[in-house]
Amino acid sequence: MTEMGDTVETEVAVVGAGLAGLETARQLHDRNVDVRVLEARDRVGGRTLSQELDGDMIDLGAQWIGPGQEVVNEIIEEFGIETFEQHIDGVSQFRAGGEVGRHEEVVMALSQEAQNELFDAVAEIEAQSREVPTDAPYDAPDADKWDSMTAATWRDRELTMQEARDAFDASVRAVFASEPAELSWLYFLFYLRAGGGFLSLTSVEGGAQQTRIEGGAQRISKTMADELDGHVYLSQPVRAIEHDDEGVTLDSESLRVEADYAVVAVPPTVAGRIRYEPPLPARRDGLTQRSPMGSVIKCIASYEEPFWREDDMSGEVVDAEGPVGLIMDDSPSDASSGALVGFLFGDEGRALADDDEMRRDVVLETFAEYFGEEALEPVGYVDHVWANEPYSGGCYAGTAAPGTLTSYGEALREPVGRIHWAGTETATEWTGYMDGAIRSGRRVAEEVTGRTE
Amino acid sequence: MTEMGDTVETEVAVVGAGLAGLETARQLHDRNVDVRVLEARDRVGGRTLSQELDGDMIDLGAQWIGPGQEVVNEIIEEFGIETFEQHIDGVSQFRAGGEVGRHEEVVMALSQEAQNELFDAVAEIEAQSREVPTDAPYDAPDADKWDSMTAATWRDRELTMQEARDAFDASVRAVFASEPAELSWLYFLFYLRAGGGFLSLTSVEGGAQQTRIEGGAQRISKTMADELDGHVYLSQPVRAIEHDDEGVTLDSESLRVEADYAVVAVPPTVAGRIRYEPPLPARRDGLTQRSPMGSVIKCIASYEEPFWREDDMSGEVVDAEGPVGLIMDDSPSDASSGALVGFLFGDEGRALADDDEMRRDVVLETFAEYFGEEALEPVGYVDHVWANEPYSGGCYAGTAAPGTLTSYGEALREPVGRIHWAGTETATEWTGYMDGAIRSGRRVAEEVTGRTE
Repeated sequence: MTEMGDTVETEVAVVGAGLAGLETARQLHDRNVDVRVLEARDRVGGRTLSQELDGDMIDLGAQWIGPGQEVVNEIIEEFGIETFEQHIDGVSQFRAGGEVGRHEEVVMALSQEAQNELFDAVAEIEAQSREVPTDAPYDAPDADKWDSMTAATWRDRELTMQEARDAFDASVRAVFASEPAELSWLYFLFYLRAGGGFLSLTSVEGGAQQTRIEGGAQRISKTMADELDGHVYLSQPVRAIEHDDEGVTLDSESLRVEADYAVVAVPPTVAGRIRYEPPLPARRDGLTQRSPMGSVIKCIASYEEPFWREDDMSGEVVDAEGPVGLIMDDSPSDASSGALVGFLFGDEGRALADDDEMRRDVVLETFAEYFGEEALEPVGYVDHVWANEPYSGGCYAGTAAPGTLTSYGEALREPVGRIHWAGTETATEWTGYMDGAIRSGRRVAEEVTGRTE
Repeated sequence: MTEMGDTVETEVAVVGAGLAGLETARQLHDRNVDVRVLEARDRVGGRTLSQELDGDMIDLGAQWIGPGQEVVNEIIEEFGIETFEQHIDGVSQFRAGGEVGRHEEVVMALSQEAQNELFDAVAEIEAQSREVPTDAPYDAPDADKWDSMTAATWRDRELTMQEARDAFDASVRAVFASEPAELSWLYFLFYLRAGGGFLSLTSVEGGAQQTRIEGGAQRISKTMADELDGHVYLSQPVRAIEHDDEGVTLDSESLRVEADYAVVAVPPTVAGRIRYEPPLPARRDGLTQRSPMGSVIKCIASYEEPFWREDDMSGEVVDAEGPVGLIMDDSPSDASSGALVGFLFGDEGRALADDDEMRRDVVLETFAEYFGEEALEPVGYVDHVWANEPYSGGCYAGTAAPGTLTSYGEALREPVGRIHWAGTETATEWTGYMDGAIRSGRRVAEEVTGRTE
């Protein structure tokens, strides 16, 4: 650690020690580029955050990886981190259209008619999303049309049954942590395409919720930071970036960093709250005004044992109506104890964001509704309101309302002078996921290396 | 002026010396409340900005006032500022559906069929907007439905002719400086309702573009600031606001202000870029992530005389296709010289935001297209890219994408502890206009006085 108040000189200054920023630094460091990472919080990991609850490590942030996420899988193997399968055996529950259905395959808990409508809709969604190039969604043949409407508009047009609409909404909330009304249909299609499609993103087996990380997802960031020992400065929120043809100067809480290049590896909306001198061009600034974060609160309760498994329940609940939009079994790999994780999305979460006690009560009561009274008496409970973290601004990721991608999308990765942009939002594969974050770090490290060589 | 580096103690600290902030301060000052205003720029006036061009004062920002804007009209009278009518006599031009039509009433330059379709649509719009309470648009009976769709979706559903759709888009751009795809339909209706309806906002005679201010609109702010002599600090951008039960502390460029209350009188997106300690609640922070500014570049060319008037042209052009969406006669009241003002909106403006020379060429060529070659040789030319001003972030005002008002709208005026919110975006009458800005200052002065008494 350099003494506070110092001026540090380096080749590349990275803002943000999440997966994107740390991978940027790691890649550059491996190429013998001198790099420093400035992190606002007193920890690394960004939107991953693992902590102990009742003796087991649980994830308050990003948690799952899945097939097709080659980069994160590769890094986990490189780091010798073990993984285990998300528990999903047993009966899942789906509340939509006023009814709770139960089935081993959660979607088959819906009525046959609703399933039929949904499957047709999903086929149409998959077909449309294949027309969206993930490196330039605004170049899709129907980009203007799709970017002029919301996912809610598409839903209302394509689905007639309330149960099917509810199920669609529940899926959108689970995947985006946003309400269908907030999302551009073009952005929706882009995001699905980047993650292998609707079924890929909504599935456990064979999908993005298939695998968990032993010891918690934050281990990846911590291992990266260990490799960068001495090059990561914690509790140094960057307030201002001056930049010109010669270089960049970053001012954080108590440190000044002079560098050849800056890499800003935080969500666009958070990046927009840094002061730039000269100011960002209109299109880039406009993008930061139009990339609101999703909104999710993760709530985890631990128990002596995963008692629901005895009743042949999987622990999975998708709920279009209650406050907890998604519940999953969150027990440790050896099932030596039990845990459930509940997600409060969007409006439901915001209503409970400021009242810790009521939030806990609502979550446990919902767990009990689905798994019995035993759920009311956990051994441990913890939750995390991502929207209350000013250096994330919400979770999972920065989204796009209608009109944003077609009018501002080109500014997403385009460097501004000597400032480059990373973060999972800038990924063209697995945008919004840990895999996309790491990919963005690799892409931006290439960009910067190309200029320094 | 207090010496820089000082700590100043006061009762109320106001952020922003636009019309909202200055009127807040003026109202409090009149009630013997000690108040200081911190302004980021080296001038007062916010989104009003008047300057001399070829001997006459022109407005690079807000410019027009109209009937029903009681508060701004009252203040102008109080200040002894003179006004004059916007020149509109003669033939106006409207390009939509690939054709340029000409008529004394601009809307009648459209084909009869397009007019019929539009008039039906406007009747429906006016009826819907009357159902939207401007102090709580999310309480409209159809709020959820209207907030789940864009103005573009409504247009595509209600209008069948390309010419009518083009005309609708041109009107939306002129009123909102935003693309129809960006705007929530509920926000659209709310905004119209707050300004007396669609016809009120789009009209010159009897509408929001009826009257101009002799010497420029910034005079209002300057007169207010004169009244507050010694209480307004220029070039003091507020970077951070600490707040607790006891009071607030504002840190600006080189000044610390300790006060009982803070009034933040800047657009929500700009307010979101101030650092708050403790951070803003999730709903308020989320609002600042979802209130993108409109995007407009005002371009003014001056001539020896208003030569178009000789050809019986009004100077007014509404153009759904060309780069300059709106042109108006901008000559001084005595017509001792001539001037035209052109508006570059949204996408068209952004494409030209970074190239001063090309922008001038495009604007003058467009003026020439409508008014003849003489327009290519102005005596003077000036323009202003509001999106390049970091302390405005764009113009005219902060807007709302779908899902924002229903999920975050309640946070618009709700104080956060000892922090209150002003600005034209918070107005319930003439939101987005100078009148709304001043009204918001009066409302917030009442709020704060209620707590200090």
